Amino acid sequence: MMNTPLILTSFIQRAERYFPNKMIISRTHDKIHRLTYREYIKRTRKLASALTSLGMKEGDKIGTFAWNHHRHLEAYFAVPCSGAVLHMINIRLSPEHIAYVINHAEDKLLLVDEDLVPLIEQIQDRLSTVEAYIIMTDKEELPKTKLHPAYSYEELLKKGDETYAFRDDLDEETPAGMCYTSATTGNPKGVVYSHRGIYLHSMALGLADSVALTEKDVVMPVVPMFHANAWGLPFASVWFGATQVFPGPQMTPAIIAQMIQDEKVTMTAGVPTIWLALLQTLEKEKYDISSLRGIVCGGSAAPIGVIKAFEEKYKVPFIHGYGMTETSPIVTLSTITSEMEQVKGEDRFRLLSMQGLVVPGLEIKVVNEQGEVPWDGKTMGDLIVRGPWIANEYYKDERTEEAFRDGWLYTGDIATINEYGYIKITDRTKDLIKSGGEWISSVDLENALMSHEAVYEAAVIAVPHEKWQERPLACVVLKDEYKSTITKEDLLQYLQPQFTKWWLPDDIIFIDEIPKTSVGKLLKRALREQYQDYYYSVSE
Amino acid sequence: MMNTPLILTSFIQRAERYFPNKMIISRTHDKIHRLTYREYIKRTRKLASALTSLGMKEGDKIGTFAWNHHRHLEAYFAVPCSGAVLHMINIRLSPEHIAYVINHAEDKLLLVDEDLVPLIEQIQDRLSTVEAYIIMTDKEELPKTKLHPAYSYEELLKKGDETYAFRDDLDEETPAGMCYTSATTGNPKGVVYSHRGIYLHSMALGLADSVALTEKDVVMPVVPMFHANAWGLPFASVWFGATQVFPGPQMTPAIIAQMIQDEKVTMTAGVPTIWLALLQTLEKEKYDISSLRGIVCGGSAAPIGVIKAFEEKYKVPFIHGYGMTETSPIVTLSTITSEMEQVKGEDRFRLLSMQGLVVPGLEIKVVNEQGEVPWDGKTMGDLIVRGPWIANEYYKDERTEEAFRDGWLYTGDIATINEYGYIKITDRTKDLIKSGGEWISSVDLENALMSHEAVYEAAVIAVPHEKWQERPLACVVLKDEYKSTITKEDLLQYLQPQFTKWWLPDDIIFIDEIPKTSVGKLLKRALREQYQDYYYSVSE
Repeated sequence: MMNTPLILTSFIQRAERYFPNKMIISRTHDKIHRLTYREYIKRTRKLASALTSLGMKEGDKIGTFAWNHHRHLEAYFAVPCSGAVLHMINIRLSPEHIAYVINHAEDKLLLVDEDLVPLIEQIQDRLSTVEAYIIMTDKEELPKTKLHPAYSYEELLKKGDETYAFRDDLDEETPAGMCYTSATTGNPKGVVYSHRGIYLHSMALGLADSVALTEKDVVMPVVPMFHANAWGLPFASVWFGATQVFPGPQMTPAIIAQMIQDEKVTMTAGVPTIWLALLQTLEKEKYDISSLRGIVCGGSAAPIGVIKAFEEKYKVPFIHGYGMTETSPIVTLSTITSEMEQVKGEDRFRLLSMQGLVVPGLEIKVVNEQGEVPWDGKTMGDLIVRGPWIANEYYKDERTEEAFRDGWLYTGDIATINEYGYIKITDRTKDLIKSGGEWISSVDLENALMSHEAVYEAAVIAVPHEKWQERPLACVVLKDEYKSTITKEDLLQYLQPQFTKWWLPDDIIFIDEIPKTSVGKLLKRALREQYQDYYYSVSE
Repeated sequence: MMNTPLILTSFIQRAERYFPNKMIISRTHDKIHRLTYREYIKRTRKLASALTSLGMKEGDKIGTFAWNHHRHLEAYFAVPCSGAVLHMINIRLSPEHIAYVINHAEDKLLLVDEDLVPLIEQIQDRLSTVEAYIIMTDKEELPKTKLHPAYSYEELLKKGDETYAFRDDLDEETPAGMCYTSATTGNPKGVVYSHRGIYLHSMALGLADSVALTEKDVVMPVVPMFHANAWGLPFASVWFGATQVFPGPQMTPAIIAQMIQDEKVTMTAGVPTIWLALLQTLEKEKYDISSLRGIVCGGSAAPIGVIKAFEEKYKVPFIHGYGMTETSPIVTLSTITSEMEQVKGEDRFRLLSMQGLVVPGLEIKVVNEQGEVPWDGKTMGDLIVRGPWIANEYYKDERTEEAFRDGWLYTGDIATINEYGYIKITDRTKDLIKSGGEWISSVDLENALMSHEAVYEAAVIAVPHEKWQERPLACVVLKDEYKSTITKEDLLQYLQPQFTKWWLPDDIIFIDEIPKTSVGKLLKRALREQYQDYYYSVSE
């Protein structure tokens, strides 16, 4: 067979050749941009030539610090298709961590959204490798900034060469992108994506048994483009020639609903928090979201009530999945196989609320000290993954050793696996509650709490306990309209029939908000720290 | 990223793990076998161990000489997943060519269907590398045969080890399979498929924008398993865990219709001749083929009438494609993109009758002396292809040089390309008619003739002509019921409004049958030889 390399250049070349009239719709601060792929690719070639003029060379790291919009998508291809590496910086990290990841990756150029410039200005002095800043803005002239040297994105593009030739001679193992993932403690850990990895992951997204992404789709990634490549959707969408919609910096539920309605979005993706908020907006205001053929949801477990509301009330299939920065990210999806088609009603929703079946191309196992756990849907174990779009290390980081063992990635997630091979994440290794030597799943308790009509969000944490070592404590945010009417006894009574007695939280406290990580996951560590003395103090 | 090799072992391991209860239905001479994947994979492991006992080693070529059935599928994985190479021998080659391909590939073992044993017996003396013959039969004892040494397939399996471990450490470039393709003159040419090539081709078959093969499908390859890996369907089907139906040695239209009805086949694939014959059967007898969600058709151009009949009368989508042994084989498919969705009626059928759009992963061009031809749907040129599942040579064959140039495969087909990037095969390079220095497409004339209700099949050939160098001659097979009523004037009159005058055949002759190649393509060479003096003789 020909030794054609699996590289991203082939994606953009295909789009340019076959889908020049398809659209990219991009919402920025000021307006909605509508570009044809023809225009988009011209601009992408110009960007590549401009970055090259500024010194970008093969293997250089180029950072982006930006929301979801067409300029970010231009960088998505301009950088890797020139042989350089796109570092998508998580804008929600702390200033210390932002400085750390830029220095650790050794970013040479930074592309920064205008409204995010202040965040970089305050750490500029600490950046040791950045040679220039490019401000992404709709304005043609350079906005006022302390960043130096700074260039206007659009001015650079004006001087760029629209005939710039992308590299089609790259080795498929060439690094194409990188993202850093937050660690429980210490600095974020870097993950490098190769052209080959992104190529195969994109193919997986197009499989009929997976997301079935197609040219006919109108794809809107709500998941940020700095979060695991926006789950790979922008790469695959360019390859297949799908219409793309980028919601920009103000990702409010109302704007998301409006864009789904206006642009007839067929496929969107994001974390559960987004879909919970969207449901609330849909309750209050009327939007037509019937164009959606699927919502991909991952990042953390979606409450069964959210899945049900989309499936039953809005007739929108809800594709629940599992992945992480280290896995490009798609690992599993809750696709209903032919053998499961007879499962109906509540049981079906229970299946959909699991993380599902591994996509073709990857291998997963759930293991404990005895090896693979039985497929009983009960026994918990460590979820491990391997395959061609799974990282094999953290970039220049000694924490590699802990997570990558014997050719497998240890995800740090605890899962069960049922008779169909469907996995269910029951906890993060670090969030498990170990009561009297037995494991309690905080996620199961949270999901049960969140299925109560009064509960907006819930986090269940392990709190030290004299007798049982650890006991569960439930932290609950009530919906506004229930704040004065619901008591903890109501909720405990609601949980009682669903769990064995010793699983039930010893206490339920009501709080106003659950702290979240930069990518919208529950930040249980903060709660644990806050409440570590709780069961001692209450028992006093 | 992890350097996980793209190998077939991962396909069968996935099926074993997640789809042990899915079915493989296989029709042999004597009965219909129903195996679960669990049983199938056990048998496949046993076969691999049995072949290893008989001396199969890494890199050895193992030949199959067989119809479409479960034993052939067992060989499809047992051989490559042990590191050896599966040589799928075309049973329809001449005895000389069969002997040639076995010797040229250096097959060490041959797996032969019982009813095909006589074909091998007559050439046994000429086979220089074969060390043993394995007879594939439902009978447990060895049938009487002159082949020596000969073993019974089922007896070998009985002794096989069902825990045999497939190789998961193979390099992805390892040869997995090979097929020979007939040449216009001379011996067949060998094509070697790597694990990587078959893996990526399988992914392409699963893409929503391609065949969208899924676990939910019931796949029946009517295309022989010795013809370009049955278009890769058995490999991809095992990977995705699809139900598979193998029609066995008696592939009559009635049996095909019956199996579609009985097994609720959703996806089938084969050459136009098959579908033409199936339509005739459906006219005469009632079968329910409504389970079909698609018919993949390739090998040669499908007449527009056949496409129309399936789409309009039977509501079965007809997926017209293009490929060849050298291309694994999928290159293009007539998938209707979103931009084409407004095309309706006859124009839509004209689109569907084209070979379509290149699938993601490959590149095609239509070139003439001036470079790429304009996308006008008119200008003809050579179709060239490249990509990771395209052969880069003929196996140990000096004809490599002619077909593989500058990194591209020269397909030997002449095509046009329209505004959407849709290709249409207008001829084989060698079948083009050059009249007065201008090209006439024999395929266009054939399709027009075949759209006439009285015409069963048609071949248009170039016949030497004193004045114009070459002129078209149409050879037509009429449907039985029209044999006495239709004249050549009727047909010429029918063609007249559709073509410029000089394209019209100078004569139309009625024949009883059109000679075909071993894979069902029109054998125009034979007609050309027969009629080479026709325009001299008629003008005398």
